[in-house]
Amino acid sequence: MSSLEIAAPRDHAQWLDANDPLGEYRERFLLPEGVIYLDGNSLGALPRATLDRLHEVVARQWGDRMIRAWDEGWLEQPLEVGARLGPLLGAAPGEVVFGESTTVCFYKLACAALQLRAGRRRIVTDLDNFPTDRYALEGIARARGAELEWLRCDRVLGPCTDDVAAVIDADTALVTFSHVSYRSAAVADMAEINRMAHDAGALTLWDLSHSAGSVPVALDEDGADLAVGCTYKYLNGGPGAPAYMYVSSELLGEIDQPIWGWLGRREPFAMEQGYVPANNIRRVLSGTPPVLALAAVDEGVRLVAEAGMERIHAKAMALTDFGIALVEVRLGELGFSIASPRDRLRRGAHLAVVHRDAHELCAALIERDVIVDFRRPDVIRIGLSPLTTRFVDVWDAVEVLRTLVA
Amino acid sequence: MSSLEIAAPRDHAQWLDANDPLGEYRERFLLPEGVIYLDGNSLGALPRATLDRLHEVVARQWGDRMIRAWDEGWLEQPLEVGARLGPLLGAAPGEVVFGESTTVCFYKLACAALQLRAGRRRIVTDLDNFPTDRYALEGIARARGAELEWLRCDRVLGPCTDDVAAVIDADTALVTFSHVSYRSAAVADMAEINRMAHDAGALTLWDLSHSAGSVPVALDEDGADLAVGCTYKYLNGGPGAPAYMYVSSELLGEIDQPIWGWLGRREPFAMEQGYVPANNIRRVLSGTPPVLALAAVDEGVRLVAEAGMERIHAKAMALTDFGIALVEVRLGELGFSIASPRDRLRRGAHLAVVHRDAHELCAALIERDVIVDFRRPDVIRIGLSPLTTRFVDVWDAVEVLRTLVA
Repeated sequence: MSSLEIAAPRDHAQWLDANDPLGEYRERFLLPEGVIYLDGNSLGALPRATLDRLHEVVARQWGDRMIRAWDEGWLEQPLEVGARLGPLLGAAPGEVVFGESTTVCFYKLACAALQLRAGRRRIVTDLDNFPTDRYALEGIARARGAELEWLRCDRVLGPCTDDVAAVIDADTALVTFSHVSYRSAAVADMAEINRMAHDAGALTLWDLSHSAGSVPVALDEDGADLAVGCTYKYLNGGPGAPAYMYVSSELLGEIDQPIWGWLGRREPFAMEQGYVPANNIRRVLSGTPPVLALAAVDEGVRLVAEAGMERIHAKAMALTDFGIALVEVRLGELGFSIASPRDRLRRGAHLAVVHRDAHELCAALIERDVIVDFRRPDVIRIGLSPLTTRFVDVWDAVEVLRTLVA
Repeated sequence: MSSLEIAAPRDHAQWLDANDPLGEYRERFLLPEGVIYLDGNSLGALPRATLDRLHEVVARQWGDRMIRAWDEGWLEQPLEVGARLGPLLGAAPGEVVFGESTTVCFYKLACAALQLRAGRRRIVTDLDNFPTDRYALEGIARARGAELEWLRCDRVLGPCTDDVAAVIDADTALVTFSHVSYRSAAVADMAEINRMAHDAGALTLWDLSHSAGSVPVALDEDGADLAVGCTYKYLNGGPGAPAYMYVSSELLGEIDQPIWGWLGRREPFAMEQGYVPANNIRRVLSGTPPVLALAAVDEGVRLVAEAGMERIHAKAMALTDFGIALVEVRLGELGFSIASPRDRLRRGAHLAVVHRDAHELCAALIERDVIVDFRRPDVIRIGLSPLTTRFVDVWDAVEVLRTLVA
């Protein structure tokens, strides 16, 4: 796209929308009138199907079948929704299961990794990793006497493989990063980092919260060991929706997580003495699955699966390309710049737009019903969730910003 | 109640229902036609208000306000619903908060207790404690090199204070029991066990899953340190609903749980480096709260609060009295007996009915739409949730049992 095209009036954005192969998907969501929603990477929109599905699970299953519904599907739900999500992450059947919050899932798998590499003391991550991951690792390191190696990454490009290589050694138990940076949207080189970790005998744990439903993920092919991710962003699972865990089939036989509970036990309802982990991925589960919330997640995952990751990723690249061009051409002289990767293949579906007055501008945008996120110290984060964002939304948001500053 | 009365025809049960001060509450729930539901202690029924509330939180809040709803109430929800539940547990404001599953909540507070009593190595519990609690303790003991002391309790009466006293010593860090036994419904002597634990310098952790919404709980008055409980039983919060944690105000300043995450940090959205626990009960939280599920829990808690624990407990005692009398008089000669405490003040809201063929009888009851639970090896567990169970339900269920065996 040339700067001539994007400097053209709003018609161009409308043309892009009219020719968008995913254009019809926006109608599958309930979106408020008059709002430009550019925060689908914080909380994805509400799929229309979710309302009916929740009514079905509440009124028909809970209300009518009551306790009998456990045998009629609820018990298998964490694996079934996991099986539906798996292909979107490049995971084989039986490698993905739904647990509690992302933080709890991350905690469990990070502890499991340390257990599997019991002789080693070091954990590698980066200072820009998502806060809850960093905090969880601090707690684990303190409790287990592990040592955290904090990489200082490039603000735009995220963890650089040379830097990662430089700190992994024979004492490294775990290497863990976000696959897509929550701030810059940089995509980490998963295959290369897995290879480097494995060469040193370490395990990897990926946070896919900003990846699932926005960029291709190939966990098996890229040799990942463990992964977790949230479902209320691009998977549109609803506020505080449950998270998922991935365990490579190679580790399934030996993995041992710290929160032993009845749903992770062989024959959970036998209620017998002595914990014996289930012989499949159930062994990473702990408590009773969150049935209502998982039904909502299922609808979000179904929509993404139906739209297809290839088309979703293509639109993510087109939307972010369009956004970058608009910011540079129409806002470049007003003190704005982009702190997301230029290479569309190394970029997720959001943009970090930098401005000295980002904090005030975010507040002003939200007041005008342009919903974005502020990220300290100077980032306006613009989420371009491919199933719900139109090119005109990007155009209009940039125009509002221009008016605010000009 | 004399055996004459209860041997009378079904009219007596109908009279009791007609004169039940809580009789109108049954209409506040959606219950399937033609089903005698005696499993509200596994999964409570669906409050009518919950359907509307879920539609409100999904369509109006998630769908319409989207990310803005976090500032408009969602963030405070775990504390607000906790504040509504607190009085039902005898907890002061700020001592109860909602987390993830009961298993995860139990794990966090058990680890926190060991941390607070770091010099001590022993954990006291009982072999009849609810399975997930037992499994969680085994995992914790293994990871931390702690030692589990398993009490063998009376099958009917639960943990006997003399037995507990005999095993608590200066090396005991934690004493943990279910307040109401999931099998026999025995109520443990919370005040006395707390006193004995404190005399030895140990802490207590109570599982209130079968207590909340069925029997009086006086955490503060009885000197409890920590407690957790599930909300999908007598609190009618829905399948897999989130659990709550109680931390005595005396421990709030020093408690430190293992799963550090952004929602437990001071200023969670500052996303700063370094975990610093919040200075209130938020510090036991980890991940993003399950917003949809918590809205459902709130409706269940509101109903129980409105009905009042005194009336609920009075009805629980009356229902279980009635059930015991019916089983003894009408089923006594058919090989049935009661394995729940005779003393109504030491009994929860369910009954353990023992029969050699319990397993087959449970299946036959369920086939006839009398929904009960089987508990190994020989218990038909009959839950008499006070807000939804009628005296005629108990009468009719006993009659079905009698027909099956006679």
